[in-house]
Amino acid sequence: MVETPLLDKINSPDDLRNLPQEQLPQVCDDIRKFLIDSLSRNPGHFASSMGAVELTVALHYVFNTPYDRIVWDVGHQAYGHKLLTGRKDRFDQNRKFGGLSGFPNPNESEYDSFSAGHASNSISAALGMAVASELKKESPRRNVVAVIGDASIGGGLAFEGINNAANNRNNLLIILNDNNMSIDRNVGSLNSYLGKITTSKGYNTLRYKTYNSLKRHNLFPEKLRGKVLRFNNSLKAFLSNQQNIFEGLNVRYFGPFDGHDLSRMIKVLREIKDMEGPRILHLCTIKGKGYEPAEKDPASWHAPGVFNPKTGERKCEDLQGKPLKFQDVFGNTLVELAKNNDKIVGITAAMPSGTSMSILQQEMPDRVFDVGISEGHAVTFAGGLAKDGLRPYCAIYSSFLQRAYDHIIHDVALMKLPVTFCIDRAGLVGEDGATHHGSLDLAYLRSIPGMIVSAPRNEHWLRNLLYTSQCDNFGPFAIRYPRGSGKIVQWQNEMTLVEIGKGEKIADGEDVAVLSIGTIADEVKTAIEKVKKHENISVAHYDMVFLKPIDEQLLGEVAKKNCPIITVEDGTLTGGLASAVVEWLNKYGYNTKVYPIGIPDQFVTQGSISELYKCCGMDSDAISETIIRAKKENQ
Amino acid sequence: MVETPLLDKINSPDDLRNLPQEQLPQVCDDIRKFLIDSLSRNPGHFASSMGAVELTVALHYVFNTPYDRIVWDVGHQAYGHKLLTGRKDRFDQNRKFGGLSGFPNPNESEYDSFSAGHASNSISAALGMAVASELKKESPRRNVVAVIGDASIGGGLAFEGINNAANNRNNLLIILNDNNMSIDRNVGSLNSYLGKITTSKGYNTLRYKTYNSLKRHNLFPEKLRGKVLRFNNSLKAFLSNQQNIFEGLNVRYFGPFDGHDLSRMIKVLREIKDMEGPRILHLCTIKGKGYEPAEKDPASWHAPGVFNPKTGERKCEDLQGKPLKFQDVFGNTLVELAKNNDKIVGITAAMPSGTSMSILQQEMPDRVFDVGISEGHAVTFAGGLAKDGLRPYCAIYSSFLQRAYDHIIHDVALMKLPVTFCIDRAGLVGEDGATHHGSLDLAYLRSIPGMIVSAPRNEHWLRNLLYTSQCDNFGPFAIRYPRGSGKIVQWQNEMTLVEIGKGEKIADGEDVAVLSIGTIADEVKTAIEKVKKHENISVAHYDMVFLKPIDEQLLGEVAKKNCPIITVEDGTLTGGLASAVVEWLNKYGYNTKVYPIGIPDQFVTQGSISELYKCCGMDSDAISETIIRAKKENQ
Repeated sequence: MVETPLLDKINSPDDLRNLPQEQLPQVCDDIRKFLIDSLSRNPGHFASSMGAVELTVALHYVFNTPYDRIVWDVGHQAYGHKLLTGRKDRFDQNRKFGGLSGFPNPNESEYDSFSAGHASNSISAALGMAVASELKKESPRRNVVAVIGDASIGGGLAFEGINNAANNRNNLLIILNDNNMSIDRNVGSLNSYLGKITTSKGYNTLRYKTYNSLKRHNLFPEKLRGKVLRFNNSLKAFLSNQQNIFEGLNVRYFGPFDGHDLSRMIKVLREIKDMEGPRILHLCTIKGKGYEPAEKDPASWHAPGVFNPKTGERKCEDLQGKPLKFQDVFGNTLVELAKNNDKIVGITAAMPSGTSMSILQQEMPDRVFDVGISEGHAVTFAGGLAKDGLRPYCAIYSSFLQRAYDHIIHDVALMKLPVTFCIDRAGLVGEDGATHHGSLDLAYLRSIPGMIVSAPRNEHWLRNLLYTSQCDNFGPFAIRYPRGSGKIVQWQNEMTLVEIGKGEKIADGEDVAVLSIGTIADEVKTAIEKVKKHENISVAHYDMVFLKPIDEQLLGEVAKKNCPIITVEDGTLTGGLASAVVEWLNKYGYNTKVYPIGIPDQFVTQGSISELYKCCGMDSDAISETIIRAKKENQ
Repeated sequence: MVETPLLDKINSPDDLRNLPQEQLPQVCDDIRKFLIDSLSRNPGHFASSMGAVELTVALHYVFNTPYDRIVWDVGHQAYGHKLLTGRKDRFDQNRKFGGLSGFPNPNESEYDSFSAGHASNSISAALGMAVASELKKESPRRNVVAVIGDASIGGGLAFEGINNAANNRNNLLIILNDNNMSIDRNVGSLNSYLGKITTSKGYNTLRYKTYNSLKRHNLFPEKLRGKVLRFNNSLKAFLSNQQNIFEGLNVRYFGPFDGHDLSRMIKVLREIKDMEGPRILHLCTIKGKGYEPAEKDPASWHAPGVFNPKTGERKCEDLQGKPLKFQDVFGNTLVELAKNNDKIVGITAAMPSGTSMSILQQEMPDRVFDVGISEGHAVTFAGGLAKDGLRPYCAIYSSFLQRAYDHIIHDVALMKLPVTFCIDRAGLVGEDGATHHGSLDLAYLRSIPGMIVSAPRNEHWLRNLLYTSQCDNFGPFAIRYPRGSGKIVQWQNEMTLVEIGKGEKIADGEDVAVLSIGTIADEVKTAIEKVKKHENISVAHYDMVFLKPIDEQLLGEVAKKNCPIITVEDGTLTGGLASAVVEWLNKYGYNTKVYPIGIPDQFVTQGSISELYKCCGMDSDAISETIIRAKKENQ
């Protein structure tokens, strides 16, 4: 274990605030040492938190947390915050089942003011808190700080928050933690704009100093703010050859400052803390700061896995002979398809490497659009591309695609446009926990008229479904697949056309029929084997492949067996496969008993997939027990 | 009928383009006359289209539609466009069942490039089309124009579109149709910013002229665009004392120009039409232009109903002795509750009058937040308010709330925050058609863990549910109610606490049980009376009140009757009440046959509510027939 003597003494931000300011750099060092040591063994998000160490210390030092609120956007950067707020002893259980959440989580700590995980919500949420405090006339005045990265601030929700920030009396402070990186390289005009601001730093510093000295001498009354803002803007634009977007939106802008200059930051925060009205403080930080390998390659060190803290050598699993991740099967297959179909284009929302859209991006950069954190735009843009004859493949994580629910309905499904939704991280995702589980997609997509909703049970089916989706104009076509890899090493099958709405019988049997969708078919197979070993039960297993349109012929065949049915899906039990099957059986008057297995109607915690499957009663044990019970109850 | 001799000859934009330019003002006059005459008899959206007449004529005159694309945002302003594109003979069937859609609709005309109805999608969709054209190397080059209002451009999706516009090679032209109005008065900083730009018109005109003369003399090569942009920005900021947000986002800005000066507009459009890269043209228009009563009171004339074209007198229904609209029962009740509970605050997204949040706004302006067109922000902001102790009532139309699906999950439900969602326009809404029907809310809310999902069957229940939602911390609480009014004139009952998850028996019976949710209970009652008259069937009727948690005791009571069940809901059959009931019956092993009545799994057209209920098999006739059939089939 590393030695972190000062951090050891900090059990809450009060302890931090009792330290003399000159000891704070040591606290920062301790936090970094702790993070490097801990995360080298128990992997998590690394580079973001390393870059935010000084910011975190400065915030808790200057603000009276938890009375004052800090709202972290996304929350990748909040590990330092967890260490300072009484959770360092449990940090070795970060992201583990029963341990700490990998994101700020209000259910875990009063210092975590708001849910985090989905980008761009911090400004709106913090604005709500600031306005609440104002309306409740709280005394002492409560400060509310939103900390948002340069990628998240490009999301539409963040813009809506900024656009509304000046509408009401509030003291919202937005901190733009600008490391010029999201998980991947940033895109979007706002981002290039932020780059330009940063290069005009000299002017801004001058302006800030002038402003402060005027204010100190009482020459800058708050009520003249508007005028001074306007004067500043034109002066600034003239001097630095550019304008400031935020001040155009009535949010006072300060910066950019060096986000690693602790004493400067503390001074600035103290100076602007008690001002009236919404403000934005622009800090430039280095993702991975303080750990050379991460500073050099921040994208790879976003979540590096296990590594050697001394050498920075990352433990790369030997992938030789192991199955490819589903995302890579998708990425490589899309390249194959795009080579033969020049209408295919790829779209990702800030996740080229996470979705492996990067593979097509590398091969055909002109045909891939990384639109940044803007899932809604991604889908509507895809609608526009499809409307004029292209075949967009829109790769977005299941839980983030929730942001584009209306866009799927209004901008794609209503016009029956041929957009293929490649929904990665569908079902339970493991360590990222509640905000990231893709539990709802089967349910929310099923209720959209005209959607094709499919899930491959393995790599070959993923390829076949991708291939099929571009063979004809089927309208909107969703293909959902999980995080991680499956079991097939030889993933490169020759792709064949899949009949839409057609499932497949995997195993024949008479006593119980299991209907599954997606890769959870593997758990079913294991369960059937377990049952076979111990009991004399004949189990049929069908892969539905399509949730919508559902295979009515297959259901008819199953229903006629007059045996109980078990539905198995890595998705919510409320509205997904289980619902579709009982609806169908009811419609045709079958009295078949259905045993639904899937994600229960609750938010599911973090943990390994096997822990979560067990906890949700979705693992092979639970399935085999259900098979046995179903047989018994229906004899 | 009015005489519109020039318009009569225009059967397609080709006819328009064959006219000499000097005849175009006459075309505009004809369009206005036609609209006033037609809409005075057959009501629709009025003031928006009146304000966009010159713009519409200019666009079709300059651009080669339908090869060139016009994407109308929302589409309230597109009636003139419908008249010019071969639909004037059917315009008396505007918004009617079997007639024209009240919004641009690609299924109706090739001139309607994209779905419209939900705000702020035009830029993303048009960008998709512009990029598609570029990628397909179409020749001649296809021009793509997005026409967006000053309210819609404040939505997060529009920002995402603008933020991405300069990322790719494209020739997108965004026309900002700025009438400083949405349906209600506009809010948001961007809007006040647009106002400021407009006041600096002199400078922009100068700049535009300089720019054009440079360009004409070939002194402004396209590749120097960036530099000139920057020079312009700082010059402009210096001269006009402000900056330009759009140019900060790399979208070239032109304007503002008078959107009623036809010849100037045609000239400008021709000049900027063939430029490379995304551009925004800012036009100032007057909502209701050309009809004095509407110019004076554009909010009331947004959709004025039937009126006397000569006097401008609007046919006000005599509401004396008639039931209040549900939205007004909501609005008035919220005031009552807010008077007794100082934690209550109201939120609306640009619809204060549409949701009647305006009533509380008038009484307690500090406690109502109109956040403009930003449903996502509205919900996340409500989450922030609730997290710090307030009781937000978030009133949004059902179909628009789809935009906030993820925000409900991530920013409210995950933290079990006490936000009450007052979901107006739930179920079929009538004449506004497919984009506006609130068909999906029951389904998409039911799958969210911890949501309370309720629907009152009448005004008294609406009040009771509103009252109940603030009596304790139940977490997120959805109350959905339809457009229009119910049947109870004396709506001001003394409010009482409703037990969460508890339905109510309305009528007892043994042969068939009908379970309904929401105001469609009235259709059920009529159906039961019809059945009673002609058949000897004893029908039980239960109002579920809550879809979630569903009343299991009630379901148990019904199931024990061992009679068929009919579920009736004004919502999609895929995932709503019907699904919940068959799931429950299956879970407890009942073999009861369920007959689901509700909105079928398809997009539903426009029409009167009674036409649509009939067409969807949800009217009292369909229900009574189903009762009879159910009884017969289960004897």
